Amino acid sequence: MTTPPVAVADVRTVCCAGTGVIGGGWAAYFLAHGYDVVAWDPAPGAEERLRHLVDAAWPALTELGLSEGADRSRLTLEPDLATALAGAEFVQESAPEDLDLKRRLLADIDAAAPEGIVISSSTSGYGMSEMYTSCQNPERLVVGHPFNPPYLIPLVEVVGGEKTSAEVVAWTSDFFRHAGKSVITMEREVPGFIANRLQEALWREALHMVAAGEATVEQIDLSITDGPGLRWPVQGPMLTFHLAGGQGGMAHMLDHFGPSLKSPWTRLIAAELTPELRDAVVAGCDREAHGRTIDDLVAERDAGVIAVLRALGRT
Amino acid sequence: MTTPPVAVADVRTVCCAGTGVIGGGWAAYFLAHGYDVVAWDPAPGAEERLRHLVDAAWPALTELGLSEGADRSRLTLEPDLATALAGAEFVQESAPEDLDLKRRLLADIDAAAPEGIVISSSTSGYGMSEMYTSCQNPERLVVGHPFNPPYLIPLVEVVGGEKTSAEVVAWTSDFFRHAGKSVITMEREVPGFIANRLQEALWREALHMVAAGEATVEQIDLSITDGPGLRWPVQGPMLTFHLAGGQGGMAHMLDHFGPSLKSPWTRLIAAELTPELRDAVVAGCDREAHGRTIDDLVAERDAGVIAVLRALGRT
Repeated sequence: MTTPPVAVADVRTVCCAGTGVIGGGWAAYFLAHGYDVVAWDPAPGAEERLRHLVDAAWPALTELGLSEGADRSRLTLEPDLATALAGAEFVQESAPEDLDLKRRLLADIDAAAPEGIVISSSTSGYGMSEMYTSCQNPERLVVGHPFNPPYLIPLVEVVGGEKTSAEVVAWTSDFFRHAGKSVITMEREVPGFIANRLQEALWREALHMVAAGEATVEQIDLSITDGPGLRWPVQGPMLTFHLAGGQGGMAHMLDHFGPSLKSPWTRLIAAELTPELRDAVVAGCDREAHGRTIDDLVAERDAGVIAVLRALGRT
Repeated sequence: MTTPPVAVADVRTVCCAGTGVIGGGWAAYFLAHGYDVVAWDPAPGAEERLRHLVDAAWPALTELGLSEGADRSRLTLEPDLATALAGAEFVQESAPEDLDLKRRLLADIDAAAPEGIVISSSTSGYGMSEMYTSCQNPERLVVGHPFNPPYLIPLVEVVGGEKTSAEVVAWTSDFFRHAGKSVITMEREVPGFIANRLQEALWREALHMVAAGEATVEQIDLSITDGPGLRWPVQGPMLTFHLAGGQGGMAHMLDHFGPSLKSPWTRLIAAELTPELRDAVVAGCDREAHGRTIDDLVAERDAGVIAVLRALGRT
């Protein structure tokens, strides 16, 4: 059986296995959305840290609007993993980013969790195919990768391993959407998924710059918060560059700035800008624009950036 | 003489040489801040495009608050470069990103501009040392790199070439600040400066992913607008990861996730995480935190992300 036994809308109890910054953030999120949360974490002091994290997040979650019945008292800490899993209708694993540890823990969870319920991992970059190797029921294991803090950032990347059932991938995507998340369902496993690959490229370039004395930590942060970072909540990097091309859009941008891909503007060697890649990027921007003209998109960007500047008290 | 003859606060007339998306955005910005703008661009149809751009930007600029006397009628288009430069107290060059073209144009500007006034280039990545090669007065040429749209994004990166006078770099930084910009003054020339190196690393990884069929254009944009992009206007990538380490901050983050630098999470090979680099990054975060605890920073981030989500109508 590969279809989970619980309908997405009927899930009441979530088990959070591992309650550090990410797992604790998930616990806060699920509590605020009206779920019962059973948390398990073997680390000394885990309960105190978790309650501190949930308490710290609660004002923000309250401000955003709690779901009916949402209550911090619906958080239970359970020292025994099998007991923690007994009543779970969904499991979110957020253990430290250590492959052996994840393999062992996921196998333990799979062995104890009720039949057929989905086990999702918060891993920052491992593929499920390399994590479920000791599991008896790999078809129900899936990656559900959140962003810090999981109680505020909407995105979850969902991707299965080779043996994960398509129904489980679809169920998990639906479940996260039902719980209020923004979901990207990936067709194939890629280390780091999508957002972390982009973020990691930026982070590595930043570390190189610090190591080489090219920029300070403070300059790097300021260059983002006062620069491209103001556009990115409004329009992603592709649409951003679509507008850098003026009325000619991404096509003009690639023809005009394409040669800069050969420039030493980062330590990352660029993709070859073949006609096929150029056309794929242009076509993707056109799909994403979905009939909006460049003028429309400029107006949307401007309104968005102004809203962000104002919201942050920067005007 | 290397100190510009006009005090920063006394500049009234700016020459915008090149009025595409960036140069036109600068023109709109300077007009909104109460400057007289003389624009020059030899491209056919340039005037029509420039006026369209300024008109499109004006509602946003009006909403943000025009400076006293700001008026679109203070924009003049001048077909002759020398005439355009005659009354300028500051020049912002925004020609296409072509090194030979920039070299020739900057030499022409330098030959015609009033003695001692600063000539700043919007180049996306060339160093001034490689651009002022045909200029008689290289000491007054400097990079002032903006972000699209220059009328909304605060950041300007200021960096001189080897022959640029320190006074000119300081004057230019002061001038942009006086005009309402957020300025990073770089100590040394690095191709792409700071923000574009970070942005370019992300963009190149995105192009690789599209080329390899790992992600679509739409997934890439969604992964940023609904993920890390929501944090970056609030806290830059370094402080973001400072908080990913929980109460242990960046030190814990590097110890915990440091090994992931070896993971194939991007095509960019990471910097070697030497003890020196680790300590430099940790110390930089501590300087930037400036006494704020992790709890303080988490509260600031949460309030900022919520403000951004609300401002964009996403809650």
